[in-house]
Amino acid sequence: MSDLLPLAEETLPALRTVSTATITTLLTRHGLRRAVVAGVRPCAPGDRLVGEAFTLRYIPAREDLDWTGTIDNLADAQRVAIERVPPGQVLVMDARGDISSGSLGAILATRLQFRGVAGVVTDGAVRDHAEIGALQMPVFCRAAHPGANKIIYHPQDFGLPIGCGGVAVFPGDVIVGDDDGAVVVPRHLANQVAVDGVEMERRERFIVERIRAGRSIVGTYPLNAEGLAEYERWKSGR
Amino acid sequence: MSDLLPLAEETLPALRTVSTATITTLLTRHGLRRAVVAGVRPCAPGDRLVGEAFTLRYIPAREDLDWTGTIDNLADAQRVAIERVPPGQVLVMDARGDISSGSLGAILATRLQFRGVAGVVTDGAVRDHAEIGALQMPVFCRAAHPGANKIIYHPQDFGLPIGCGGVAVFPGDVIVGDDDGAVVVPRHLANQVAVDGVEMERRERFIVERIRAGRSIVGTYPLNAEGLAEYERWKSGR
Amino acid sequence: MSDLLPLAEETLPALRTVSTATITTLLTRHGLRRAVVAGVRPCAPGDRLVGEAFTLRYIPAREDLDWTGTIDNLADAQRVAIERVPPGQVLVMDARGDISSGSLGAILATRLQFRGVAGVVTDGAVRDHAEIGALQMPVFCRAAHPGANKIIYHPQDFGLPIGCGGVAVFPGDVIVGDDDGAVVVPRHLANQVAVDGVEMERRERFIVERIRAGRSIVGTYPLNAEGLAEYERWKSGR
Amino acid sequence: MSDLLPLAEETLPALRTVSTATITTLLTRHGLRRAVVAGVRPCAPGDRLVGEAFTLRYIPAREDLDWTGTIDNLADAQRVAIERVPPGQVLVMDARGDISSGSLGAILATRLQFRGVAGVVTDGAVRDHAEIGALQMPVFCRAAHPGANKIIYHPQDFGLPIGCGGVAVFPGDVIVGDDDGAVVVPRHLANQVAVDGVEMERRERFIVERIRAGRSIVGTYPLNAEGLAEYERWKSGR
Amino acid sequence: MSDLLPLAEETLPALRTVSTATITTLLTRHGLRRAVVAGVRPCAPGDRLVGEAFTLRYIPAREDLDWTGTIDNLADAQRVAIERVPPGQVLVMDARGDISSGSLGAILATRLQFRGVAGVVTDGAVRDHAEIGALQMPVFCRAAHPGANKIIYHPQDFGLPIGCGGVAVFPGDVIVGDDDGAVVVPRHLANQVAVDGVEMERRERFIVERIRAGRSIVGTYPLNAEGLAEYERWKSGR
Amino acid sequence: MSDLLPLAEETLPALRTVSTATITTLLTRHGLRRAVVAGVRPCAPGDRLVGEAFTLRYIPAREDLDWTGTIDNLADAQRVAIERVPPGQVLVMDARGDISSGSLGAILATRLQFRGVAGVVTDGAVRDHAEIGALQMPVFCRAAHPGANKIIYHPQDFGLPIGCGGVAVFPGDVIVGDDDGAVVVPRHLANQVAVDGVEMERRERFIVERIRAGRSIVGTYPLNAEGLAEYERWKSGR
Repeated sequence: MSDLLPLAEETLPALRTVSTATITTLLTRHGLRRAVVAGVRPCAPGDRLVGEAFTLRYIPAREDLDWTGTIDNLADAQRVAIERVPPGQVLVMDARGDISSGSLGAILATRLQFRGVAGVVTDGAVRDHAEIGALQMPVFCRAAHPGANKIIYHPQDFGLPIGCGGVAVFPGDVIVGDDDGAVVVPRHLANQVAVDGVEMERRERFIVERIRAGRSIVGTYPLNAEGLAEYERWKSGR
Repeated sequence: MSDLLPLAEETLPALRTVSTATITTLLTRHGLRRAVVAGVRPCAPGDRLVGEAFTLRYIPAREDLDWTGTIDNLADAQRVAIERVPPGQVLVMDARGDISSGSLGAILATRLQFRGVAGVVTDGAVRDHAEIGALQMPVFCRAAHPGANKIIYHPQDFGLPIGCGGVAVFPGDVIVGDDDGAVVVPRHLANQVAVDGVEMERRERFIVERIRAGRSIVGTYPLNAEGLAEYERWKSGR
Repeated sequence: MSDLLPLAEETLPALRTVSTATITTLLTRHGLRRAVVAGVRPCAPGDRLVGEAFTLRYIPAREDLDWTGTIDNLADAQRVAIERVPPGQVLVMDARGDISSGSLGAILATRLQFRGVAGVVTDGAVRDHAEIGALQMPVFCRAAHPGANKIIYHPQDFGLPIGCGGVAVFPGDVIVGDDDGAVVVPRHLANQVAVDGVEMERRERFIVERIRAGRSIVGTYPLNAEGLAEYERWKSGR
Repeated sequence: MSDLLPLAEETLPALRTVSTATITTLLTRHGLRRAVVAGVRPCAPGDRLVGEAFTLRYIPAREDLDWTGTIDNLADAQRVAIERVPPGQVLVMDARGDISSGSLGAILATRLQFRGVAGVVTDGAVRDHAEIGALQMPVFCRAAHPGANKIIYHPQDFGLPIGCGGVAVFPGDVIVGDDDGAVVVPRHLANQVAVDGVEMERRERFIVERIRAGRSIVGTYPLNAEGLAEYERWKSGR
Repeated sequence: MSDLLPLAEETLPALRTVSTATITTLLTRHGLRRAVVAGVRPCAPGDRLVGEAFTLRYIPAREDLDWTGTIDNLADAQRVAIERVPPGQVLVMDARGDISSGSLGAILATRLQFRGVAGVVTDGAVRDHAEIGALQMPVFCRAAHPGANKIIYHPQDFGLPIGCGGVAVFPGDVIVGDDDGAVVVPRHLANQVAVDGVEMERRERFIVERIRAGRSIVGTYPLNAEGLAEYERWKSGR
Repeated sequence: MSDLLPLAEETLPALRTVSTATITTLLTRHGLRRAVVAGVRPCAPGDRLVGEAFTLRYIPAREDLDWTGTIDNLADAQRVAIERVPPGQVLVMDARGDISSGSLGAILATRLQFRGVAGVVTDGAVRDHAEIGALQMPVFCRAAHPGANKIIYHPQDFGLPIGCGGVAVFPGDVIVGDDDGAVVVPRHLANQVAVDGVEMERRERFIVERIRAGRSIVGTYPLNAEGLAEYERWKSGR
């Protein structure tokens, strides 16, 4: 991935302070409205997730390949990926939206946590949902299911562009997750979205303050010229 | 709405003590079995909602109308509705059951709370789900999604009869919500349902007491003649 | 049910310590991969459920049979089943996966609890979801809905093989439930699964300990010959 | 089934001339609005089906019972049912709405045709869809699928009340099917529905004639007093 | 509707020669990608539909309003709309995507045909599907169902903007349908789309001719500069 | 693909005479029950398809990559695949089961036909469905939709293992399609399935003949020892 655009040093820390709702809105300014991994939630409510995407791709299981009862940690794409995803990155699984078995369990999630991985997003289910929710590493999924991944998935490869929850994920894209779901920020937009996101969060705090104080949304949300001037004074006064 | 049937003063307070399960049962006595807004839950578990319906209707977004990046608080049907829904009423949104973006966000919900609105029901998703759950105003929805409403919806009009979660909602109908979902009480039935609901809740408390004490359901649920007599004594003894 | 294979005395207590994820894996060793009641969760997160299945079957409601407003506790299959399911067993309802009304309410659940029933699994919804979650008896369902069961179901019979959440359930099968869902252990496999499950849980605790201590999954999960020897020493040392 | 209400001799012949749309309307007069087997169509467009229901029930397959590769014609509920359904009756299968394999194939359908069975309704798929469509016996299903029934179904029993496509089917109910789908007429209503259906079809032919001649629907559909008088003259003049 | 933008005289005739696939592509040039009424097909394969939209809106039925067994042709919104939709226009029904009953039957469709209506689009089902398919007027729907519309729908109003199959339809928009489905052309784009559509169809005929003659898609689809020059000669030579 | 197991010369011709129902049954003998591309049908009913799989993979579209209005035949994975799929092979598209736009249109299908491609299977929709159905090349899809593929898909790569309709497809697997759907025969099983398929089809013709002549299924389907002997005589006598 040496040919990826570099991220500014402050981009990931900044995105940690920006909600997925704000990011989704900012992406529309770049023409992107299909950026959300549909229907995923953190196993532990309140968890936040930020990091670069490391992709893993499942295809449907084939009984003679996947129902053998054995696993080869050196050949199985899921197992290899788990040992290779770099610390600080997010393992994003293309589970094809299928929640009829688990795509990850607590033991492998514990290993990912130990390795310093930033978190996991899967558009499938996870098994050991409660244990995974108790880890210090955020895992976003669509459901809980006790089954093992080999029952319905064949781990095929990693490091390729994938789809996850109806959105394209390219290796190196930046993933942000919170209670509203997870959003994929194309890598070339990440620095800009981080800068704009911090500003937009600040402005929305100002707006919410005014709304709580009884202002109508008219003139306040969005801010009109007068409101913007007021905001600039508020901002410089902090 | 001056031509609406008046509600008895005690109707809304009484309905605050009646569960949606009880109301749903009472409505079947009037021949109504399609009264439930399917699949909605309060953002904050445990929240209860009671109030008259103020309706807002979305149709699918059209890119040249809705993907403009601007919003006119004086023309946009959602924004106008938010400033007009009377205090104590419930904003009911026909989001056509589509949860692929949010139909309401925290800033507008905060404004609704300030204005004294009783709560919100939408058959779509909301964004800023956690912030909305932290408000003092109950919001019932089908899911969380970080997207803004303009991505998939065009706010069309308000104050018209709508569908929400598979049930007809006429302006002035009474909405009641709890952890089981939300139910629509046609306005002309609200006074009766409130009276009957208080009585039925009382009777069910009596029944549950008996069941907890070891009575079989036979004779107790429903009460037979003997049980009813016992209930009348219990009631008068309180 | 006198002709059912006997369960070893320690089988149910043992299964209480085994997760549904482990059981699902063990069943694949017997060729079974369709053992999970899809999409059910405990009303009270964290609840665990173990017991033999007592089956109840719903078919779709017919208005002239089910929308009468009366109930005969001595003829209605649901009501009779509730008084007959033996203490310690699990009432498993075939609600045909339909969540458009409740298949059980708090009063009947309270009666089941009093009677010492081990718990309930339904592939439909329940009403009074919060009250049911507050009981001491675990209830697994797919959703909450305030409607009564007669609105969409006709309780037909009990004690027959049924389908529930896409899996066959024969009377006397052993049901185990936790936060990941519920799994059906065919009766003739229950003793073996219990024995193997206890061992597999112990081994996984050993593995997780090693993973937490920094071991790679290679050699550890699954254990290679060296790891197995280490495990045997660990086990005998406890 | 000796205790079933007798059908008038002319009931089934009469129902052969009545559309499912007409029957569905007539059933609403008896309070029944859930009478339609949802989503089924004849394998051969234009086919009509009339007969008493003989029910067959599938539950989900279990691998050790159903994936054995052998079949016992004397024990398998589907196979036994196929040899027992009386000539002139309709085999109605409760396939639980699952179309991920076929619930009937051409060889068994050929046997049913030879035995003089009136037809088949399944809320699952069929295999050999084209061959089945070429038979002289109408088969109504939801989809085509090449898989055998044992892949997903366990044939459990026959002759019991079942659900099919969301509607209750009791043995002896009368099934009518055409291009719009299939409808279940409760046995105790069949004679009345047949009589009323013939009359309603005639009246609708009169109405369509008038509509084709340019009459407004006002006064014609439904007929007002004048229209009814005209209809009576038209009827007696034929 | 006197304030609608006028359509050029040749617009509708031109659109009759343009496929929905071509129109969908042309609309993307105006930024519109949500223009297709999802999942509808003509009752009679091969039918084509062109005309201005006249909208009709259904909300969910309420039993006390809609299950009365009577119909008032002068008050029921569906019935009134059927007598008012102008000749040459298309009746577009917002049936909320619900196919669990019919939204139109053969008698009313026959009346629409007599009145010279251009056709019908509904995102629900129709009853009497075969008879409707035999009319000379194209009807596009999602499924067949024998039930009457009042079972699930309450006809609410007409002439308002609606949603149909996931797309906004404003009165006066131009509807085009063929075997691929139906597409909604916003009125202000209709003249342009008609002109461009005729040209694009011609160009695609040229391209298909070349492809059939063995040309690679490279240079041909899309046409490069040389191909375009060739096309211009071909066009002028006709 | 030079390292693929060779297919016997007679394998593909033999499979042309074997139904997907027969193949699906034969695959279960090898332990494979997930071999069917769910829900696809030929655009032209009656079409049969046989050939080796050439795979094409779509991921979800991203607006800045795919909504540009331009296409590069030398870089776009779909376009390149169309010029590279070898004559006699089947283009199998992983459209992720999404039917909200077309995954192939008539011009590209015409090019594939010219190039001698055996056919196409997509688990998405196609546009120009009627024109594609009129080609001499079989195309199997899940639905018709007028939209272009770039609206929802990003053609990512070709020649990799994919999922299609819930089943794994490896390049070189053999695809067979008929009116029941399409089935994927893993390459290493193709020769055996072809041989066994021809025999099984012959045996089923014998069985159907006997069933048509009035034999019970008992002893005939499956054949008992006597029936098998009779079959062997019948076979040798032809």
